Amino acid sequence: VAQLDEFSLIRALTDNRQSAAFLGACGVRVGVGDDAAVAETTPGRELVLSCDTMVEDVHFKRVTMRDSDIGFKAMASNISDMAAMGAVPRLALVALSVPAAMPLERLKALYDGIYECAGRYRVAVVGGDTTSTRGALTLTVTMTGEVEKGRALLRSAARPGQVVFVTGYPGMSAAGLELLLGLDCPSDRWPEFAPELAPLVEAHCRPLPQVEAGRLLLASGNCGALNDISDGLASEAWEIAEASGCGLLLDSRRIPVHGSLRAYAALTGKDPLDWMFYGGEDYQLIGTADRKGFASLSEALGKAGIPVREIGTVSGSFVGVRALDGGGRDVPLAKKGYNHFREVD
Amino acid sequence: VAQLDEFSLIRALTDNRQSAAFLGACGVRVGVGDDAAVAETTPGRELVLSCDTMVEDVHFKRVTMRDSDIGFKAMASNISDMAAMGAVPRLALVALSVPAAMPLERLKALYDGIYECAGRYRVAVVGGDTTSTRGALTLTVTMTGEVEKGRALLRSAARPGQVVFVTGYPGMSAAGLELLLGLDCPSDRWPEFAPELAPLVEAHCRPLPQVEAGRLLLASGNCGALNDISDGLASEAWEIAEASGCGLLLDSRRIPVHGSLRAYAALTGKDPLDWMFYGGEDYQLIGTADRKGFASLSEALGKAGIPVREIGTVSGSFVGVRALDGGGRDVPLAKKGYNHFREVD
Repeated sequence: VAQLDEFSLIRALTDNRQSAAFLGACGVRVGVGDDAAVAETTPGRELVLSCDTMVEDVHFKRVTMRDSDIGFKAMASNISDMAAMGAVPRLALVALSVPAAMPLERLKALYDGIYECAGRYRVAVVGGDTTSTRGALTLTVTMTGEVEKGRALLRSAARPGQVVFVTGYPGMSAAGLELLLGLDCPSDRWPEFAPELAPLVEAHCRPLPQVEAGRLLLASGNCGALNDISDGLASEAWEIAEASGCGLLLDSRRIPVHGSLRAYAALTGKDPLDWMFYGGEDYQLIGTADRKGFASLSEALGKAGIPVREIGTVSGSFVGVRALDGGGRDVPLAKKGYNHFREVD
Repeated sequence: VAQLDEFSLIRALTDNRQSAAFLGACGVRVGVGDDAAVAETTPGRELVLSCDTMVEDVHFKRVTMRDSDIGFKAMASNISDMAAMGAVPRLALVALSVPAAMPLERLKALYDGIYECAGRYRVAVVGGDTTSTRGALTLTVTMTGEVEKGRALLRSAARPGQVVFVTGYPGMSAAGLELLLGLDCPSDRWPEFAPELAPLVEAHCRPLPQVEAGRLLLASGNCGALNDISDGLASEAWEIAEASGCGLLLDSRRIPVHGSLRAYAALTGKDPLDWMFYGGEDYQLIGTADRKGFASLSEALGKAGIPVREIGTVSGSFVGVRALDGGGRDVPLAKKGYNHFREVD
């Protein structure tokens, strides 16, 4: 990309990606190309904001993720933050710092992934910044969304007596990463090696945030606290417990184990619970809900094709997270999470 | 910072920076600490969004800017984008990628600058992301603001017959950078060397975005196009000309030259116009306005202590930018701007 100036590069990456009709339907009045973007807001809703940075060799390696996966996931991680608030994702800005030696084709693939994910969730990309760097490829996506006034699902809203639930199957992304690192081959070749483990790789490279689940949870009026589990189930449970000033007692035997994770655990001789509690980058949700409404809530999510499982209860008699182990013994759950300051290799 | 985990680092940098009362007055309902922030919106206004990335050794060097300057300027560049739309800046997210060897004290100084600028312009810092990197310190600030519905000042709104104006004194930031690079000494020592040139260094290291000017221009109802001149006066004039499909004829003799710039030009034997047309990172505004209302507009800005000067006219007879040179000859003005892909050393 060294030959291109900033404006030409931005055009090469963003032109003709989202139609004027799509942007208009998203409420965008001014998109890429002025000092700032301008968009409508929805009366009765509040603004929700998040941002997330991915750095090559810290958050991803080329050996584990295709460039389009990297773009997809950078967008997905922010959409997951929106889902965790019960919000609708709406607008994104993409800040990219690029080593001069990077081929334009790699960047185009990265933007393919960005726009694929944005399109899937009807997010308008309305701006950004593209700079050079002498360091690693760095991608920051910032997102805004909207949620009904005063209704955002906060991590501080767990109350004793509620059930703790999780959507999907925790731990798959971390196991997928380990699988990819272990294979040490380009990610587009992994299917040759382990097709039956594909869901783990998919979970790591193409995670699907649970926006619909977040919206259904909010609409139900029965949801207490909600977090995504991007830093791991244990860490996020701790966040809820501390923010709410109560205890979460999880039953490790009730946490759903995906078939692919069970297969990989058997193959490697590892305990799937390690990934399920301490693996990160799953864009599933952990939350609490009133016991009374949980059955109908669970049914509504099930009808939408979203697996949800009761995995514990909220207690008023301690603050923190405890878990029943495989033998039914009540043990404290370590607070450790997925720490991006621990580099991946 | 290598010993700190991400959460401890974020706390060390952001705790107790902005009071709950300040955040509340800014309409923040949920700040740092949940999956995303939540803030009120103002009825009748639209959302304005921008982001800007600064990379060490591309956008700044430690020899030219103190860490607090870097933080201040990263915030200021986004506030300037808001000003250029006529918008009120409101909320910011800060994404920081940090080399492991960086001392915590440097980061704290950087955040001092971030919060100093944010406080000055009443911007609430509501979130962000802090990651490690093997590469250069990278700082992305994303900002949202608000502007009255349908009233944003776009670059496409120049019309033949309007005057072209500029606020402040273009070229000072670029001259300040050159001065600092030339001196090749730590920036906190520059006053010993050239105290009379202080305004150039101030313009480079602590630029003050023209939010009040933008608001007055919008309120006047007389303003056409508006841009900030962060990519240089010539480049931004070209942006307005092309977006509006008309010509800007600038009179180089009418562009205000600051005394410090004149002094530095004399000292170095250079033509101040080079900095004024092609220097970047001035957070002043270039715009167009109806001739009829310009005198009162100029008076309103003057009363607010904002220098504004008529520097040309909008023409319907060509598309692009031309300038009258020192001898009054009409010459085309090169489209080149301040290109951040050209590294600073």
